[in-house]
Amino acid sequence: MKRIAVMTSGGDAPGMNPAIRAVVRSAIAYGMEVYGIRQAYSGLLAGDFERLTNREVSGILQRGGTILQTARNDEFRTPQGQRRGLRRLNEHGIEGLIVIGGDGSLRGALALHKLGFPVVGIPASIDNDILGTDMSIGVDSALNTILEALDRLRDTASSHERAFLIEVMGRNCGYLAMIGAILGGAEITMIPERDMELSEVAARLEDAYLRGKNHAIAVIAEGSKHKINEVAEYLEGHNVGFEVRITILGHIQRGGGPSASDRLLATRMGVKAVEYLRDNVGGVMVGLNGQTLVPVPIEEVTERTRSVDLAYYDLADILSR
Amino acid sequence: MKRIAVMTSGGDAPGMNPAIRAVVRSAIAYGMEVYGIRQAYSGLLAGDFERLTNREVSGILQRGGTILQTARNDEFRTPQGQRRGLRRLNEHGIEGLIVIGGDGSLRGALALHKLGFPVVGIPASIDNDILGTDMSIGVDSALNTILEALDRLRDTASSHERAFLIEVMGRNCGYLAMIGAILGGAEITMIPERDMELSEVAARLEDAYLRGKNHAIAVIAEGSKHKINEVAEYLEGHNVGFEVRITILGHIQRGGGPSASDRLLATRMGVKAVEYLRDNVGGVMVGLNGQTLVPVPIEEVTERTRSVDLAYYDLADILSR
Amino acid sequence: MKRIAVMTSGGDAPGMNPAIRAVVRSAIAYGMEVYGIRQAYSGLLAGDFERLTNREVSGILQRGGTILQTARNDEFRTPQGQRRGLRRLNEHGIEGLIVIGGDGSLRGALALHKLGFPVVGIPASIDNDILGTDMSIGVDSALNTILEALDRLRDTASSHERAFLIEVMGRNCGYLAMIGAILGGAEITMIPERDMELSEVAARLEDAYLRGKNHAIAVIAEGSKHKINEVAEYLEGHNVGFEVRITILGHIQRGGGPSASDRLLATRMGVKAVEYLRDNVGGVMVGLNGQTLVPVPIEEVTERTRSVDLAYYDLADILSR
Amino acid sequence: MKRIAVMTSGGDAPGMNPAIRAVVRSAIAYGMEVYGIRQAYSGLLAGDFERLTNREVSGILQRGGTILQTARNDEFRTPQGQRRGLRRLNEHGIEGLIVIGGDGSLRGALALHKLGFPVVGIPASIDNDILGTDMSIGVDSALNTILEALDRLRDTASSHERAFLIEVMGRNCGYLAMIGAILGGAEITMIPERDMELSEVAARLEDAYLRGKNHAIAVIAEGSKHKINEVAEYLEGHNVGFEVRITILGHIQRGGGPSASDRLLATRMGVKAVEYLRDNVGGVMVGLNGQTLVPVPIEEVTERTRSVDLAYYDLADILSR
Repeated sequence: MKRIAVMTSGGDAPGMNPAIRAVVRSAIAYGMEVYGIRQAYSGLLAGDFERLTNREVSGILQRGGTILQTARNDEFRTPQGQRRGLRRLNEHGIEGLIVIGGDGSLRGALALHKLGFPVVGIPASIDNDILGTDMSIGVDSALNTILEALDRLRDTASSHERAFLIEVMGRNCGYLAMIGAILGGAEITMIPERDMELSEVAARLEDAYLRGKNHAIAVIAEGSKHKINEVAEYLEGHNVGFEVRITILGHIQRGGGPSASDRLLATRMGVKAVEYLRDNVGGVMVGLNGQTLVPVPIEEVTERTRSVDLAYYDLADILSR
Repeated sequence: MKRIAVMTSGGDAPGMNPAIRAVVRSAIAYGMEVYGIRQAYSGLLAGDFERLTNREVSGILQRGGTILQTARNDEFRTPQGQRRGLRRLNEHGIEGLIVIGGDGSLRGALALHKLGFPVVGIPASIDNDILGTDMSIGVDSALNTILEALDRLRDTASSHERAFLIEVMGRNCGYLAMIGAILGGAEITMIPERDMELSEVAARLEDAYLRGKNHAIAVIAEGSKHKINEVAEYLEGHNVGFEVRITILGHIQRGGGPSASDRLLATRMGVKAVEYLRDNVGGVMVGLNGQTLVPVPIEEVTERTRSVDLAYYDLADILSR
Repeated sequence: MKRIAVMTSGGDAPGMNPAIRAVVRSAIAYGMEVYGIRQAYSGLLAGDFERLTNREVSGILQRGGTILQTARNDEFRTPQGQRRGLRRLNEHGIEGLIVIGGDGSLRGALALHKLGFPVVGIPASIDNDILGTDMSIGVDSALNTILEALDRLRDTASSHERAFLIEVMGRNCGYLAMIGAILGGAEITMIPERDMELSEVAARLEDAYLRGKNHAIAVIAEGSKHKINEVAEYLEGHNVGFEVRITILGHIQRGGGPSASDRLLATRMGVKAVEYLRDNVGGVMVGLNGQTLVPVPIEEVTERTRSVDLAYYDLADILSR
Repeated sequence: MKRIAVMTSGGDAPGMNPAIRAVVRSAIAYGMEVYGIRQAYSGLLAGDFERLTNREVSGILQRGGTILQTARNDEFRTPQGQRRGLRRLNEHGIEGLIVIGGDGSLRGALALHKLGFPVVGIPASIDNDILGTDMSIGVDSALNTILEALDRLRDTASSHERAFLIEVMGRNCGYLAMIGAILGGAEITMIPERDMELSEVAARLEDAYLRGKNHAIAVIAEGSKHKINEVAEYLEGHNVGFEVRITILGHIQRGGGPSASDRLLATRMGVKAVEYLRDNVGGVMVGLNGQTLVPVPIEEVTERTRSVDLAYYDLADILSR
C-alpha cells in the first residue's frame, strides 16, 4: 500500500490531532504517502484531499479540535453517495482510508468496506459510547475538564447551602456523568442508563441537607430522562433546604488540548491503524482491550452504542457519603 | 488598637483567602491580635469568633473560597440586629473590624461605622461592580476562568457552523461579559448596561455566517435584558445559518484558586486595611486608584453599583472583525 | 475484619488522597473502622494512629500530596523495628493494614506480611517503576505536568534557534522521560535503560538544526547516564547551531491535584484493597492488569523495579521527525 | 498615515499575539494597511514584510509565543544597519512602525526615530524591567506560571523536611522572584537588587526548621549574586535540617497562553499605539500609568532598566511568618 488517506469525522474530540500526527508520521516511516481529507465525508465527496507531510503535522500535538475539521453529510448516507465517495478515493489513487471518529463515522467506514475498500477505524468520542474498545479518544480529556468544573464548584461551597446541578455530555451513554460524579465527589448522578425520579433527587438532597452537608452536587447527563431545567424547577418547587444553581458545560467539554492519556492512546492507535492497512487488514476498528490494541470488525461495533458499567453506580453511592 | 476581627461576606470570590492571610499576618506583625468571624454577619450575631494566628492562615494562599465562609443574614439589616452585632464585638473586646466582600457587605459595615465602630472594607466581588475602586478582588480570577471556557469553545469550532451562547455572571454590571468577550474573541456581547434586541443578535450572527466564519460566540451577562434561553429559542426560530449551542458557566466562575493579580491585590489590600485601623482611619473601603491604594468613604461606594465603561463596547466591535 | 489501618509511604504521588478516601469510605460501607497512620512507618512505630471517618476524607479528592503525610524510617528496616511495628498494630486492635506507596514501602509491607500480619499494598509512584501493575498511581498526573511544561517550551520557540534540555524524574525507570518525550514532541530522550553518548546527542541536535528546525527539545531522566548539566556543558563546547537552555522540573512533578485517570485508578484500587482484606487475602499488592485489578504477591513485585518498554524508544524516533 | 508595520522583538512574552491582533484590527478600522515584519530587525533588513489582514490574526488571542517570531540581530546595532532598515521601510511605503518588545528592542526603535521615522514602542518583557510603565506585557502570565509551580511544590511538602530552591527569570530585575515569593508563600527571596549572603540563607532555613515548618521554599532570581547551584552546594555542606531539592523553571516562564490581564494590557496598548501613529505621535512608548495609557519618550525609558520596589522585600518578610 503506497498511498493512504485520513479523515476526522463526527463530534470532535481532544486527541484527534495527535492521532492524525501518528498516522502521518508512521505511514511516512513505512514508505507511504498520506492525504488528509478535510471535513470528513463532505470533503471526500468534494475531492478535498491534501498531501500531509511531517511538516503539516508539526506542532499539533497539544492542539484541541482537529486540523482536518469535521462535518455532517447526508449524501454519504445514501448508496449513491457512498459509491461516489469510493470513486473519489480511486481517482486520487488512494489505496486505504483511516477514519477517526465515533459511531456514525464508523458506519460510513463500514459502507466503504462493504464496497471492497480497505478502511480502518479509530474510535474517537468523548462520550465513550463506542463498542469494542475499553476507551475512546477524547474521554480522558473531557473527564479532566469536567473534574476541573466540579472542583471549582466545591471550592465555592463556602457560600452556604447550595445545590449545584451540572449538565455534562452523554446522549446515550452516562460514562462521563457517572465517572465524573465519582471522581468529582458528587452526591447525585442522573444518566440515560438508569432513571432517577425527581422525587428521589429531592429526597437525596434533603437527606444531604439534614446530615449537615453545606452543599451538594448533582451531575446530570444530557441524555438522562429528566433534563436539568426540569430538575431545577422541581427542586425550587419542593423545598430541599438548598438553593439551586445551574451549570451547563456544553461544548467546553470538547475543547482544550488533549490530556497525556488521550495523546498516548491516539498515538498508539494512529500507528496501529497504519500497520493494519500495511498488513492488508481492513474493515476493522483499532480497539483497546486492556492495555493491548486489537482489530475489531467495524460491523460489530456499529450495531449499537456502549453503556456505562452500572457497577460504578453503586460505587458512587458508597463513595459519596 | 490591640484586637481586631475580620470576616468575609456576600458571594465568595477567589482572593478572599490571601486577603485574610495578609490581614492576619500584618496585624500580628503590628502587635495586634486577630479574630476571624465565621459566616459573616450571622457569625457576628452568634458570637462565632475564632483566634487566628499565623498557623491558621498557613497554606491558604492558593485555595479558592474562603476559610471563614460567608452567609446571608436578614437580622443584621435591622437596626436591632446591628446594635446586637456591635454588642458582640464589644463583648469580645474587638476594637476594629475588617469586612471583605461586595456591595451588600459594605452596607453592613457602614451600619457599624455609623454606630461609631471602626470598620474598614475590602472590595471583593467577581462582578467588579463596586464603586470607588478600579478593581475588586476576584475579578481577575473569574475573567481567567471565563477565558479558559471561551478558548475551549473556539478549539472545538472544528465541527462547523455552530453559534455558542455562553452565560457569565453579572446581574448589574456587564464587566465580566464585556471584557471576557473582547479578550475571548467573541462576536456578540449582551450586558445589562446596553440592550441588544434579539433581531440584532440574529442579524449579527447571520452576518458572521455570510462572511464565512465557521462559528460565532455570544457572551451574555446573566443580567442582560434577554436571557440565554430566550436568545437560543429566538435563534432556533430564525435561521441564522449556525446551529445554536448553550453553555452556562454558573458558579464555576467563583471557584478555582486566585490568580496572581488577585493574590497581589488581596495581599496589598489586606495589609493596607490593617494599617488604616492602626492609624484610626475607619468608615472607609480600601480602593485601588491606578496602582495606588486609597481610603474611600464607604458611604460613597454603597450609593449605587458600578457599571462597565461603555468605551469597551465599541472596542469589542472593532476587534471582533 | 473489623478494624483496619491505612498509610501512605515513600515519595508522595498525586492520587494518594483519593486512594485514602476510597479505602475509608468503602471500609465503612463494609462495616469496618479505619485508622490513619501519619508519616508512614515512623508513625507506625510512634503509635500515631487517628480514626478516620467519612468526614476526615471529605474534600480531599482534588488535593495534591497526602493528608497522612509520608516519611522515611530507618528503624523499620531492622527486624526489631518490624516487630515493634507489629506490636503497635496489635496494641491498637488493628487487624489489617493497607500500604499506599512505592517499591520501598511495599518491602516494609512484605516484612509485616512475613510476620503473619494481613497487609495489602497499593502501588503509588510517579516513576511507574513498580512490577506487577501496568500503571501506578501518580504517573498520569506527573505526565500531564511534564506535558504542560513541554507545551510551554514549544510555545516559546518563537525566539529562534534554541535547544531546550529538560530534566524529569526517574532514577531507575525512564517511563516519564520516554512517554513524555513522545507525547511532548521532543527530539531526544535520555533514559537509564539505554545510554546515549554525548556525541550522539550533539549529532542529533545538529541534524535537527541543519534540517531547518528552529528549536529542539531533549528530555533527560534524572537517572540517565549523563546528567543535564553535563549535557549542557558538552553542547556548549561543541557548536550544534542551537543555543542551550536548561529546565529542571524537580518536585513540581509530584505536586498538583490528581488527574482523572489517577483519581479513578486510586479509587478503584482503594476499594479493591479493602475487599482483599475483607476476604482475608493478604500479602498482595493490587495490580492493574489491562483494565482489571488483580492480586499480585508482594514478594514478586519487590524483587526488582520495572523498566520502560523499549519499543517506545523506536516509536519516539519515528514520531519526532 | 496609510500604511504601517509591526514587529515583535527580543525575548518573547505571552501577550505579544493579542498585541499584534489589536494593532492589526484597529489599524484596519482606522483605514490603514498593516504589514508584519518577521523575525524583528533581521526581517526588517531582509525585507521580510507580509500583509496582515483580519484573517491572519484570527485565532491567535490565546496562543503563546508570537506569530511574527523574534530574533537577535547585530547588524541593526550599527548606524549602517539602521540606515539600511530605514531604506527597507521606505521601499515598502511604510509610514510608521510599531515595535513590541523589551529594552533592547526599544533601543532599535529609538535609532529609527532619531533618523526621523515615526516609531511607537509597546513594552513586552516578562521581567517587568522596562522604565516608564507600571507593567509590561507578559509579566502577569509569567507570574501565574511561577505561582503554579510554587503551589505544586507546596502540595508535595507532605514528604517531610525538604527545602525547595527554585530559580526564576530576572537578570537585572527581581520583580518575578520578589512578587512570586510573596504570592507563592516562599520563605526566602534572592534578587539582583539586594544581596543575601549564603550564611543568611542557611540561618533562615535553619530558623524555619527549628520553628517546626516541615518544608521551606527559596525563590532565586537568575541574576541574584549567588546562583542556585551555589546555594544548593552551600546548604548541603551546612546542615540546616532540610534536604535540598532544586527546580529551574527556565523558558517555561515564557510559554503558555497569555493571562486575562496580559490580553487586556496588550489589547489596550496595541490600539493606543495605532492611535499615536494616526495622530503623528512618534518616538514614544505606550506606558501604563496607574490605569491610564500615556506616551513616554523612548529616549527616557531606554536609559536604564527598572528595579523592583524594595518595599515588597519587607512585606515578604512579614507575610512569610
